[in-house]
Amino acid sequence: PPPESTSSEEWLWNQIKAESLRDAESEPALASFLYSTVLSHPSLHRSLSFHLANKLCSSTLLSTLLYDLFLDYFSNNPSLRDAIVADLIAVKHRDPACVSYGHCLLNYKGFLAVQAHRVANLLWIENRKALALALQSRVAHVFAVDIHPAARVGKGILLDHATGVVVGETAVIGNNVSILHHVTLGGTGKAVGDRHPKIGDGVLIGAGATILGNVLIGEGAKIGAGSVVLKDVPPRSTAVGNPARLIGSKGKPSEHE
Amino acid sequence: PPPESTSSEEWLWNQIKAESLRDAESEPALASFLYSTVLSHPSLHRSLSFHLANKLCSSTLLSTLLYDLFLDYFSNNPSLRDAIVADLIAVKHRDPACVSYGHCLLNYKGFLAVQAHRVANLLWIENRKALALALQSRVAHVFAVDIHPAARVGKGILLDHATGVVVGETAVIGNNVSILHHVTLGGTGKAVGDRHPKIGDGVLIGAGATILGNVLIGEGAKIGAGSVVLKDVPPRSTAVGNPARLIGSKGKPSEHE
Amino acid sequence: PPPESTSSEEWLWNQIKAESLRDAESEPALASFLYSTVLSHPSLHRSLSFHLANKLCSSTLLSTLLYDLFLDYFSNNPSLRDAIVADLIAVKHRDPACVSYGHCLLNYKGFLAVQAHRVANLLWIENRKALALALQSRVAHVFAVDIHPAARVGKGILLDHATGVVVGETAVIGNNVSILHHVTLGGTGKAVGDRHPKIGDGVLIGAGATILGNVLIGEGAKIGAGSVVLKDVPPRSTAVGNPARLIGSKGKPSEHE
Repeated sequence: PPPESTSSEEWLWNQIKAESLRDAESEPALASFLYSTVLSHPSLHRSLSFHLANKLCSSTLLSTLLYDLFLDYFSNNPSLRDAIVADLIAVKHRDPACVSYGHCLLNYKGFLAVQAHRVANLLWIENRKALALALQSRVAHVFAVDIHPAARVGKGILLDHATGVVVGETAVIGNNVSILHHVTLGGTGKAVGDRHPKIGDGVLIGAGATILGNVLIGEGAKIGAGSVVLKDVPPRSTAVGNPARLIGSKGKPSEHE
Repeated sequence: PPPESTSSEEWLWNQIKAESLRDAESEPALASFLYSTVLSHPSLHRSLSFHLANKLCSSTLLSTLLYDLFLDYFSNNPSLRDAIVADLIAVKHRDPACVSYGHCLLNYKGFLAVQAHRVANLLWIENRKALALALQSRVAHVFAVDIHPAARVGKGILLDHATGVVVGETAVIGNNVSILHHVTLGGTGKAVGDRHPKIGDGVLIGAGATILGNVLIGEGAKIGAGSVVLKDVPPRSTAVGNPARLIGSKGKPSEHE
Repeated sequence: PPPESTSSEEWLWNQIKAESLRDAESEPALASFLYSTVLSHPSLHRSLSFHLANKLCSSTLLSTLLYDLFLDYFSNNPSLRDAIVADLIAVKHRDPACVSYGHCLLNYKGFLAVQAHRVANLLWIENRKALALALQSRVAHVFAVDIHPAARVGKGILLDHATGVVVGETAVIGNNVSILHHVTLGGTGKAVGDRHPKIGDGVLIGAGATILGNVLIGEGAKIGAGSVVLKDVPPRSTAVGNPARLIGSKGKPSEHE
């Protein structure tokens, strides 16, 4: 991993360009795709804006509008660019199936959904709610990842496979969290207001886990695949089953496949 | 909520136009989208026909064909238009994350999938099975909601988030039912013929619940998230777990987030 | 079912053309769709190449490129064509909701995802990994079926409904396996290298089942819906629950709805 400094973005962009150039040379069938998505762009956030706009556009929501929107927000918010970098490094580091940074940038719908969400979240905060909700909707349609624009999401996030992830309006996700596909951070249906889970730093949530209500999943905790969690889970502990029960704890957060 | 009369559709359409006009004024980036999907149309069912056709078309199944199909069925079947109105009101009423009727009309893939299903169901009944199955397939591809065209679905339906919902051929869903994402109303694989669940009025089915076989979920019952239900569930009771067990009952149906 | 001979492909293609002609005549709204996807093509694998290319293309990955790719691999690999035939027959035979071979060819996203995967798998084996991963990504985006290109998949496969299926890098799926939607063949996150399930011939995996780690599901075994399986399952036995437990065994593999 590169040094965590202001040059991480530059370092990462150079890596991605080198990867894309190598792939374009070894696989001519991909050359046009790699030039249009990566190699023709002057920066990581321009490449990402172009790629997201093409993915999320529709016949009534034009790619040019989306491109301008993403480019505007990524250009003017260094924290969004930091998060892009942190996520790319997290995915490459934690997912053994991720062969390169470019692989994540171009192919991981969880990564793309999270970057679009961060823009939707800023739109929501700025009270541009209609546009925030339209963006959420396009992400839910195209990537099958439904994150309410009000949900707060940290950095270093891995949404692996990502299909079917649902994150409710008042959910909060910390830093360095790994979430597998089909995970729900939802409401119980009995509460209004602050009604969704709070996920601590370094948590790992297995495939198909459902966490409901304003519960706290402590830092470094692990939630087993298919678990249904309705209560707080202490830091560094592991919860499994339906309903979930604790099965022990560890001294430090574990890494995730 | 408006009075349940023949003017509900008119009342609702005026609401949606007012919402869209307000959003188009406050968010110029959405103006073109809102004009093409809502404000340029003379009625709710024309707006919906246009929107569905654009969502569901492909390079080989043209939007004009789908537009004509939806418009024809919605125009000639008042019960379909009643169901559209009932669903919009149900979603706005039951889902605290739904900020407006237009939000549901334009953005909720569960709502859109159900309206397309109702047309597919009429096609199936009229023995236009090839077209019904083609429509089911487009809905499954585009919205990740797979409802067999023969399944019977009531009014006042909320499919919240909707990704991954599967409803089998002989399933029946009553009125005012709320179904979260990843819910399956499927077969056990051991039976032929009438082999799928029957869901009573006012039932709430939590995220990821799997209900298999020709079982009856009584009116007002609640099925917990992640449950696997293989037996009847009495009215107004709550079933949770894998396999599901009853955990009590209530005097009246509960509302759903 | 036709005789298992070298003429199966021809027999099946004639069936599909007859079905399509019948549907085009009875449903003029579908005639253009059926001509462009089936009736204008000289063979099953050309029809499938065209259909897959249209489904999987994007504004940056052109349909012509994908069409040439599929046609090249299907034309030059008889084993791919045998697998197409075996899968079509399996789906028609095992899924009571499948009304015709053409219904599966045109509408079943699980069928389409598996055929695209087999090409991705050959690309992976030939060390064309960037293109294999790009193809996996398109399949995951378009069909919500995420099969790592290195995973080995047998013949006679039914992916029913298919939304949300995830198959990891070192997974192996035998012949005549039926897998419902939301099924995960994943890793535990604790292992590297050979870390995914091995599924024997004739296994049936119910909706939402999660099988994790390098475990062996013996031939003819059945995994109940919603199960979480972390250990080997003996041949012809049935495992259900979270965590899964065995509930008996049978003398021979069962068929699947």
